[in-house]
Amino acid sequence: MLRKPYEKAANETINTGFGAKTEQSSDRIFDTKGKATVKKTGLSFIESHSLYHTLVELSWRQFYLIIFTSYLIINLIFAFIYYFLGREAVEMVLTNDSNLSFFSECFFFSTQTLTTVGYGHISPNSFWASLVASIEAIIGVLILAVATGLLYSRFVRPQSFVKFSNNLLVTPHKGIFALMFRMAPYKNTQLSEAEIFVSMVLKVEENGVMVNKYYKLETEISKISTFILSWTIVHPINENSPIYGFDLEDLQDDKMELIIHLKAFDDTYSNIVVKNYSYTFQDIVHGAKFVPMFTSNANGNATILDFTKLHQFEIVM
Amino acid sequence: MLRKPYEKAANETINTGFGAKTEQSSDRIFDTKGKATVKKTGLSFIESHSLYHTLVELSWRQFYLIIFTSYLIINLIFAFIYYFLGREAVEMVLTNDSNLSFFSECFFFSTQTLTTVGYGHISPNSFWASLVASIEAIIGVLILAVATGLLYSRFVRPQSFVKFSNNLLVTPHKGIFALMFRMAPYKNTQLSEAEIFVSMVLKVEENGVMVNKYYKLETEISKISTFILSWTIVHPINENSPIYGFDLEDLQDDKMELIIHLKAFDDTYSNIVVKNYSYTFQDIVHGAKFVPMFTSNANGNATILDFTKLHQFEIVM
Amino acid sequence: MLRKPYEKAANETINTGFGAKTEQSSDRIFDTKGKATVKKTGLSFIESHSLYHTLVELSWRQFYLIIFTSYLIINLIFAFIYYFLGREAVEMVLTNDSNLSFFSECFFFSTQTLTTVGYGHISPNSFWASLVASIEAIIGVLILAVATGLLYSRFVRPQSFVKFSNNLLVTPHKGIFALMFRMAPYKNTQLSEAEIFVSMVLKVEENGVMVNKYYKLETEISKISTFILSWTIVHPINENSPIYGFDLEDLQDDKMELIIHLKAFDDTYSNIVVKNYSYTFQDIVHGAKFVPMFTSNANGNATILDFTKLHQFEIVM
Amino acid sequence: MLRKPYEKAANETINTGFGAKTEQSSDRIFDTKGKATVKKTGLSFIESHSLYHTLVELSWRQFYLIIFTSYLIINLIFAFIYYFLGREAVEMVLTNDSNLSFFSECFFFSTQTLTTVGYGHISPNSFWASLVASIEAIIGVLILAVATGLLYSRFVRPQSFVKFSNNLLVTPHKGIFALMFRMAPYKNTQLSEAEIFVSMVLKVEENGVMVNKYYKLETEISKISTFILSWTIVHPINENSPIYGFDLEDLQDDKMELIIHLKAFDDTYSNIVVKNYSYTFQDIVHGAKFVPMFTSNANGNATILDFTKLHQFEIVM
Repeated sequence: MLRKPYEKAANETINTGFGAKTEQSSDRIFDTKGKATVKKTGLSFIESHSLYHTLVELSWRQFYLIIFTSYLIINLIFAFIYYFLGREAVEMVLTNDSNLSFFSECFFFSTQTLTTVGYGHISPNSFWASLVASIEAIIGVLILAVATGLLYSRFVRPQSFVKFSNNLLVTPHKGIFALMFRMAPYKNTQLSEAEIFVSMVLKVEENGVMVNKYYKLETEISKISTFILSWTIVHPINENSPIYGFDLEDLQDDKMELIIHLKAFDDTYSNIVVKNYSYTFQDIVHGAKFVPMFTSNANGNATILDFTKLHQFEIVM
Repeated sequence: MLRKPYEKAANETINTGFGAKTEQSSDRIFDTKGKATVKKTGLSFIESHSLYHTLVELSWRQFYLIIFTSYLIINLIFAFIYYFLGREAVEMVLTNDSNLSFFSECFFFSTQTLTTVGYGHISPNSFWASLVASIEAIIGVLILAVATGLLYSRFVRPQSFVKFSNNLLVTPHKGIFALMFRMAPYKNTQLSEAEIFVSMVLKVEENGVMVNKYYKLETEISKISTFILSWTIVHPINENSPIYGFDLEDLQDDKMELIIHLKAFDDTYSNIVVKNYSYTFQDIVHGAKFVPMFTSNANGNATILDFTKLHQFEIVM
Repeated sequence: MLRKPYEKAANETINTGFGAKTEQSSDRIFDTKGKATVKKTGLSFIESHSLYHTLVELSWRQFYLIIFTSYLIINLIFAFIYYFLGREAVEMVLTNDSNLSFFSECFFFSTQTLTTVGYGHISPNSFWASLVASIEAIIGVLILAVATGLLYSRFVRPQSFVKFSNNLLVTPHKGIFALMFRMAPYKNTQLSEAEIFVSMVLKVEENGVMVNKYYKLETEISKISTFILSWTIVHPINENSPIYGFDLEDLQDDKMELIIHLKAFDDTYSNIVVKNYSYTFQDIVHGAKFVPMFTSNANGNATILDFTKLHQFEIVM
Repeated sequence: MLRKPYEKAANETINTGFGAKTEQSSDRIFDTKGKATVKKTGLSFIESHSLYHTLVELSWRQFYLIIFTSYLIINLIFAFIYYFLGREAVEMVLTNDSNLSFFSECFFFSTQTLTTVGYGHISPNSFWASLVASIEAIIGVLILAVATGLLYSRFVRPQSFVKFSNNLLVTPHKGIFALMFRMAPYKNTQLSEAEIFVSMVLKVEENGVMVNKYYKLETEISKISTFILSWTIVHPINENSPIYGFDLEDLQDDKMELIIHLKAFDDTYSNIVVKNYSYTFQDIVHGAKFVPMFTSNANGNATILDFTKLHQFEIVM
């Protein structure tokens, strides 16, 4: 392939909201999980973090760890308060008379109050203990309210469960080459009206300064009415392509990054879901094509979509 | 009717996201419930299922069965733990001294803890029993949170409560024939800005290979501002129709399938709702027309929409 | 005014989804609350009602009545079960020995179980009573979950809090007449990107049959970026108007109905809200104009929107 | 700069929904928090306030104050009821016999009932006390439901966490001047498809009456696909600008206000979020430009967005 001068790129550069000067921006704009590689400074932790977003995006393991740790800490705090209110304040039957034994009963009194289980074999026996217990009980109620909200949010958070192929293939296609990758929805949801926007970043020299150039890539099909099977995105490298005439080294020199923005309507959630993804020049395989991923089953009443083949390709030249 | 060669179809084929080769796809793309006939393999159960989607789409009967079964299992697990902590660990009054009687009291202590009802006539009497009970109580609280979220999700899940006529009629219409079906919203909701997209799949031979051809069907009215009464969709079989000149056998040979995608705005939910539906050549009735489904009531202050007539048609030729 | 022949109406009739033949439809398509005057028959109650929609659209008074009645009924049912399990089954201290007194204690045991308050001064004392109580407690938990979901739904239901003027004015405007009504948002919410669609229904004779004709009305402004003050909708009765040349009797003869569909974005809910409204020929006042509804306050730092003036007009001819 | 006659403004005035006559409107239409400076009169408090909107938009401090105050008041009311039912009605162990001591136990019995903690060391001992307690318990359950809904609403309320620069700069730009301000998203959310609408209000004399003129301002970039870094909005003051030829005094005379409406899609919430903002002529700094706000970090794997620089500019002439 011949290298084509940048200034003749047929595609207009587009505004992505990212920096124009290379020195101002990171090497890769999105990581493979679709998160932008941006760090914010000059803000307090509180200001720069939405507690809600943070708690909703944690893994389930981290989320439950936080829940149980908070439960432990709150109960320890109240246990200490009951402990310092003294042995007269809380009525209980102690099997042995040690302070540790008293403290552990205070702790369990706290758990029974916070969860509102309130067996009653331990109960407040003074004005102050009763007051603290009534505050703890309402806090317990509010915590339940928050936990409900968070768990619900985590459940219903609209997500596009779509897997992308590991590689970006350069495939012979209708007499020229084409850049190809594919995606498939992997959950038991139904996506419709899926739309894809593909843009490319090239780091090039312009008037002696290294700048980021953003191009919208034309793809053969950019919208489908039902996104249920795998979908292969095809960018023909013709004279309208910003990388027309490039070879692999050119892409490497320019630190090519492909930014993918997928948008679809989830029929179950009745909501729009989005997914960002990114490929770099290191993901390119030259002269390969994807192996088919779906086929009809034996009696013809279902189409089988085989995810073991999602990343598979065969070398064709 | 004369058969019209496929290659002269005036409508452009469209991209639906389904397979192009017939061998790659099932005979029917959507079932009558609007679910795509796709099966995913090569994924673990966890990976291919969204727990949330699954629990939300279960029938109420299945949903409650799962709730009560889980309740039983969790209580049995905790009952065993209390049982093995021994008779000293939990304070209770046993009417008889059998192990079974002790186990059943452990089970009820568990239910009273998990639901946070906590009567207190059974109460934990050792450190370990208290600890297990405080864990069970917080689990109970979290389960309540999850149950709340799921029940709420099931309630508010935007759905388009629309019934379709059983049959697809071929009706004489303005001098030619037209393909007709009708739909009506059956719940006490109000749909506005309803839009319909109808596409047709024909399985035809092309260059010696059987392929699926997808056509967008033109309909006389494809958008209405208020979808409250029944709505009859009319596709005139004129020279722009992909089945112009077909007879019933042609449709059967080509395993014709009509795919319907309905989109509307639900005024109560303030949300977009969608509904997929599918007809095959077997649903066609030739030379029939639908009987009217609505009429004014006696004093003229309401329009009566009669669902007993939804599927009714009369033979007109 | 001269009567203009219907067939020369410059506006195209539009598809609203309502019936074409007058005998098929009610006199008025929407009532003044924006509900379509449609009744559905041939469906079971369950089938034609979405429980969720029904409970969400009840008034607060009705809603709480249903909540408390259900609470009473469920507790009565469980009270009877405990009652029939006998005096040995539930442990309690009875102040007198009557059956009524026993039943009322059973009832309160039920309320204490269902709400999970579980004081414990009444507690289950047999296997069967314990079992029923553990079922009642989990039902209580699920009812709490449902109540939470419903209350939340009622709170967040996107609604467009917009008031309409009582009358439809025919006002001299730029040398001709114009049809005017006005609307104003009355809650502490902020609506943006408001859009209005006005259509008119006339019942006219066509080929010997009375038919409903639907026209889209052109209005001077049909979209505003911020809907915070009052908004007067102006339809100039020029040669493009379907009622050009009509006098009041013509409108009455044709049972004119104006159907309004308002759509806006609620900044607080971040959701689209809609509102339907309808005027009939009986709401028309001829030769009047609205009095201004808003003005700057004394120190110029706020605009006062006065709702006592919403319906006020003055006769100008 | 030369003053350009208003009537030659190349931009069409636009409909914003605000008043046309200056006397009818406040000096400034939006305050700096993006709230319209409108006050509604002629409505009851209930009618003009959406309880939900009010509770959701309170600060957390105010919200918790209301929660705890309500908790206190409800418990005081029920405490009085139990108190007046008399000492026989509620079973408890009083450490001293004073009325105050009895009242405080009634109060704690109420808190234990309302939160459903129900220890049982205080329990209802008469029909009427039991009845009141069962009503209080169900009210407690409903309050929990409402609290859950409100807390959840407050958490998930779609908000656009975007900061605006304090000043509006007049900056030399491509040979002419341009009006500039900038914005940056400050939370750990990801905004995509951001769109900005900028309009300008000028208070000018027209036919002897002071009127508000609204202009849509053209900006160099009005839509970006990813809004993750800072975004500088540039309005070139060329012959199409409504303030072409103005100097600072003209802007002051006309009480220029810039109204900004930002709309974006929040990938985490999967929802559209909006943000209004407003600048006045007092915020203008002439002959200054913003200092860059982001740069690549040392090893090039992240872009640093520095919020300490958001408001910083340097004088360039």
